[in-house]
Amino acid sequence: MPTQPSKRLEVVPNPHPDRDYEVALEIPEFTCLCPRTGQPDFATIRIRYVPDRHLLELKSIKLYIWSYRNEGAFHEDVTNRILNDFVAVAAPRWIEVVGDFSVRGGIKTVVRATHGTRPEI
Amino acid sequence: MPTQPSKRLEVVPNPHPDRDYEVALEIPEFTCLCPRTGQPDFATIRIRYVPDRHLLELKSIKLYIWSYRNEGAFHEDVTNRILNDFVAVAAPRWIEVVGDFSVRGGIKTVVRATHGTRPEI
Amino acid sequence: MPTQPSKRLEVVPNPHPDRDYEVALEIPEFTCLCPRTGQPDFATIRIRYVPDRHLLELKSIKLYIWSYRNEGAFHEDVTNRILNDFVAVAAPRWIEVVGDFSVRGGIKTVVRATHGTRPEI
Amino acid sequence: MPTQPSKRLEVVPNPHPDRDYEVALEIPEFTCLCPRTGQPDFATIRIRYVPDRHLLELKSIKLYIWSYRNEGAFHEDVTNRILNDFVAVAAPRWIEVVGDFSVRGGIKTVVRATHGTRPEI
Amino acid sequence: MPTQPSKRLEVVPNPHPDRDYEVALEIPEFTCLCPRTGQPDFATIRIRYVPDRHLLELKSIKLYIWSYRNEGAFHEDVTNRILNDFVAVAAPRWIEVVGDFSVRGGIKTVVRATHGTRPEI
Amino acid sequence: MPTQPSKRLEVVPNPHPDRDYEVALEIPEFTCLCPRTGQPDFATIRIRYVPDRHLLELKSIKLYIWSYRNEGAFHEDVTNRILNDFVAVAAPRWIEVVGDFSVRGGIKTVVRATHGTRPEI
Amino acid sequence: MPTQPSKRLEVVPNPHPDRDYEVALEIPEFTCLCPRTGQPDFATIRIRYVPDRHLLELKSIKLYIWSYRNEGAFHEDVTNRILNDFVAVAAPRWIEVVGDFSVRGGIKTVVRATHGTRPEI
Amino acid sequence: MPTQPSKRLEVVPNPHPDRDYEVALEIPEFTCLCPRTGQPDFATIRIRYVPDRHLLELKSIKLYIWSYRNEGAFHEDVTNRILNDFVAVAAPRWIEVVGDFSVRGGIKTVVRATHGTRPEI
Amino acid sequence: MPTQPSKRLEVVPNPHPDRDYEVALEIPEFTCLCPRTGQPDFATIRIRYVPDRHLLELKSIKLYIWSYRNEGAFHEDVTNRILNDFVAVAAPRWIEVVGDFSVRGGIKTVVRATHGTRPEI
Amino acid sequence: MPTQPSKRLEVVPNPHPDRDYEVALEIPEFTCLCPRTGQPDFATIRIRYVPDRHLLELKSIKLYIWSYRNEGAFHEDVTNRILNDFVAVAAPRWIEVVGDFSVRGGIKTVVRATHGTRPEI
Repeated sequence: MPTQPSKRLEVVPNPHPDRDYEVALEIPEFTCLCPRTGQPDFATIRIRYVPDRHLLELKSIKLYIWSYRNEGAFHEDVTNRILNDFVAVAAPRWIEVVGDFSVRGGIKTVVRATHGTRPEI
Repeated sequence: MPTQPSKRLEVVPNPHPDRDYEVALEIPEFTCLCPRTGQPDFATIRIRYVPDRHLLELKSIKLYIWSYRNEGAFHEDVTNRILNDFVAVAAPRWIEVVGDFSVRGGIKTVVRATHGTRPEI
Repeated sequence: MPTQPSKRLEVVPNPHPDRDYEVALEIPEFTCLCPRTGQPDFATIRIRYVPDRHLLELKSIKLYIWSYRNEGAFHEDVTNRILNDFVAVAAPRWIEVVGDFSVRGGIKTVVRATHGTRPEI
Repeated sequence: MPTQPSKRLEVVPNPHPDRDYEVALEIPEFTCLCPRTGQPDFATIRIRYVPDRHLLELKSIKLYIWSYRNEGAFHEDVTNRILNDFVAVAAPRWIEVVGDFSVRGGIKTVVRATHGTRPEI
Repeated sequence: MPTQPSKRLEVVPNPHPDRDYEVALEIPEFTCLCPRTGQPDFATIRIRYVPDRHLLELKSIKLYIWSYRNEGAFHEDVTNRILNDFVAVAAPRWIEVVGDFSVRGGIKTVVRATHGTRPEI
Repeated sequence: MPTQPSKRLEVVPNPHPDRDYEVALEIPEFTCLCPRTGQPDFATIRIRYVPDRHLLELKSIKLYIWSYRNEGAFHEDVTNRILNDFVAVAAPRWIEVVGDFSVRGGIKTVVRATHGTRPEI
Repeated sequence: MPTQPSKRLEVVPNPHPDRDYEVALEIPEFTCLCPRTGQPDFATIRIRYVPDRHLLELKSIKLYIWSYRNEGAFHEDVTNRILNDFVAVAAPRWIEVVGDFSVRGGIKTVVRATHGTRPEI
Repeated sequence: MPTQPSKRLEVVPNPHPDRDYEVALEIPEFTCLCPRTGQPDFATIRIRYVPDRHLLELKSIKLYIWSYRNEGAFHEDVTNRILNDFVAVAAPRWIEVVGDFSVRGGIKTVVRATHGTRPEI
Repeated sequence: MPTQPSKRLEVVPNPHPDRDYEVALEIPEFTCLCPRTGQPDFATIRIRYVPDRHLLELKSIKLYIWSYRNEGAFHEDVTNRILNDFVAVAAPRWIEVVGDFSVRGGIKTVVRATHGTRPEI
Repeated sequence: MPTQPSKRLEVVPNPHPDRDYEVALEIPEFTCLCPRTGQPDFATIRIRYVPDRHLLELKSIKLYIWSYRNEGAFHEDVTNRILNDFVAVAAPRWIEVVGDFSVRGGIKTVVRATHGTRPEI
């Protein structure tokens, strides 16, 4: 696996597929560019998911998050796109992505999107 | 869009209308005047909503919040009026507005109003 | 309205009676006397309510709270009496009163009482 | 009432028996002895209850808590015994006792036990 | 019981088997090795359970946690294995194990797994 | 000593007069009346002192603080008067009194006054 | 004294002019306009001073702070101007004014200016 | 060394006697009895010292602290006595003992005493 | 002034050059690349300075900080280079730059450098 | 440089040797064994230093800290040994090492040692 920013997320087999359990990841180092002004935006991305057959591989998440560094992205859109990409590759039973963005114009924005039905755990 | 206080809220299309997801905004810089004494009041406004076809546009929210600066407004009333204005322009699936006001006469007031039924997300 | 301690609570019309919404008040400056020892007791009173036709008027709450300053009052009893008085004058759809008292004899006491059924908001 | 450690809990009449309301007590000064090693253990005891016909009397709770000072007591057992004693004397509609014990061997233990069905309040 | 790292968990009889109650343990001193790089990983392990006939014995938990010190273990896997081992020895009515791991590659991971159906308490 | 509010502070002999050491007291339950409006004011009083031949007796401090309950007192003045009274009765080597008052008119006031030269300790 | 915004600060005699002591004021409700963009700025103003012959009168400070509401003012300049105005009217032995401004363009600014030499207290 | 409460403090040789360095100990589990009322008092004891030829041995500190469990002790006196005992056995270059006691009668007391001159470190 | 990343810092005249006062800036959105691995690093930059004839202009600081986004920079070096650039353009009487970097390899690094002698303020 | 635990610390040239500046490192993942009981101990190590001709290389610090994992080490001794090793390899103008250890037997220990004279910065 190269150490380059990359949109290619990787998975590994879930060693406990018979059980519903939750994995929570916090990534405080997301940055992209504002599509309107071209200026940098910063966020913490928080992910919680209940894996099915696959776990998200940590290093590929890091490179994936890195891949937004020089891309333009609106807050609401990018949070949903991250969610879609994670669903496409890992097909979790349930997943939530939160984008917690820095203050802009005196306003703080937090976007939260989910996919699937959360099992009782 | 002019940089003037304005009651005119703007919207942009929701890029992910097929999904119920939540946007949360925190605006710690609301100020209006007390209708009884004419003296300044201060509040943090917190908004959470599930967009339908439109997203609230951030800069217009800022100008809208600014428009209360020289208006008289009671705590309970202004929180509901903000809610009504947001509903009128963006028609979200669900929305909550919280007005968290500074201490007056040794009493702190927080008003919370919602519109619509919150989807399971 | 005189600036004297007074048990007479005042109300004002609810400007948004068609909506269930919540008003929360925090009053950190309640003091009364212990009926057994005559010594001062201190508490923070927290109120949350869903108004029906009337809002509680802030200044009269302040004078009402002040009226306990030289009265004897047990923790559990006074919290319920405050609740009863607020219900009598404002007839809210739902109301909660919390009395959060200072440590006495190494024990901290918090009393919480409600009236009515809380609407979904 | 003597100022001596004592297992005898006292009650006083509940002045508002027609209402379900909650009383919460926090007692950060519980100490007993470890039955295995004889060494002191320390805990904060937290009690929440919905009174029926009686309130727990504060001073007797203090003397009751004091009575464990030179007794051996396991964490799980003593939390349940305190619960049983409170139920026996005050017969509350619902009660919860939490024993929040200090770190021993690098492990912190918190035990939580309840009795009765909590009313909606 | 020897003071050596050991996978052998011990139990003691539950003195209050007729009641559903909860025991919560926090163990901030878990360390293992990363199976990929061989480097040390650190975590806080949090356990909550409702005992049935047996309580987990504290000292054996300490030695059990210690036994991972020189083992390779993935975050998701080891949290589930700890859960399985606790279930095998103590057969609790319900149990939750949380592994709260240190930041690696700018990402913090928390894994939460449960077994059984939590009683109402 | 009667359990009545009283301006009469008591002292006890300092058991370690050969050593400069510090005693710090925090009293979060001070209340007096505003001389201008007659309305209640609230403060936390903090005292630090290096005793000489006498220690301040705790119960008499409590009754002394209580004695301000129905007196009019300005923030700056009352903090200095408390300092003067403590100096008069206990003649400490050094003493500091801090009056930390509640918000009035949107402004929080803290007054700090000292007497004597603080020894190196 | 009228309840109108006003640049006219008032003083009252210092009741303890023989002692060096400190008065600290915190005013979280300062707002002015940015001279470049015309948009609102928000700050907390903190003042500490050692009075000489006069104390600053609280209500006039409130009206003085209010007087900036519709004025353009740069962060560094307005903090120094407030300091100058307080020095001109109260001539304290020492005074510090801190302007703690909200985030603008991702940068938070705090300005601190003093006048006179702080006595040892 | 027996596992019994004991006033006998033990020392071990300082492995780095050529250097001035500081050791800080925090012991949150001190309890004694009030000499006036016989009721339990609780404190956290904090020690900082610069060792000379000896270090204080940890287990003996634990048994020493335990030895106060059934003794009467005033706050100011016991803090100084602990200091004296530590000085007598370990003769540190400098030492500070802080007794941070629980609220009694609405007043919190912290006593701080030192011995020797603190080296520059 | 263009809205492009730029190493060119701008200054404005200090409106109060006769007084020593302090300006503190906090910029939580610094990011650069690790020169060894090419991977992104993140930091909060904190600046405190006593201006002489010039103030640092806020928007140019923002563009300057942005200019490191795609540059390789070691923690210790970049903090000193920022300091040097600020000194070169604004010639403050005293300045401190702190670079507070995110955890890497389980280690958090904070670098603090100053220039000039801090006046007494 | 191998990825193996190693006592061999590495240095890199200080790019700004003409300036006194401070580097602070926090390493929350230190673990060693208690020489008396063989059981694991845990600590956070904090280092602050003013470099002279060399900077401590981060990855070698990580491997150095790792090297204590299976060694016996007393709290006071190991903190001083780490200090000595850092001084030997990097010869800083001033350095401080703090070892902040977990609770053992109800007592928390923090050891702080320095070398050299701290320059004014």
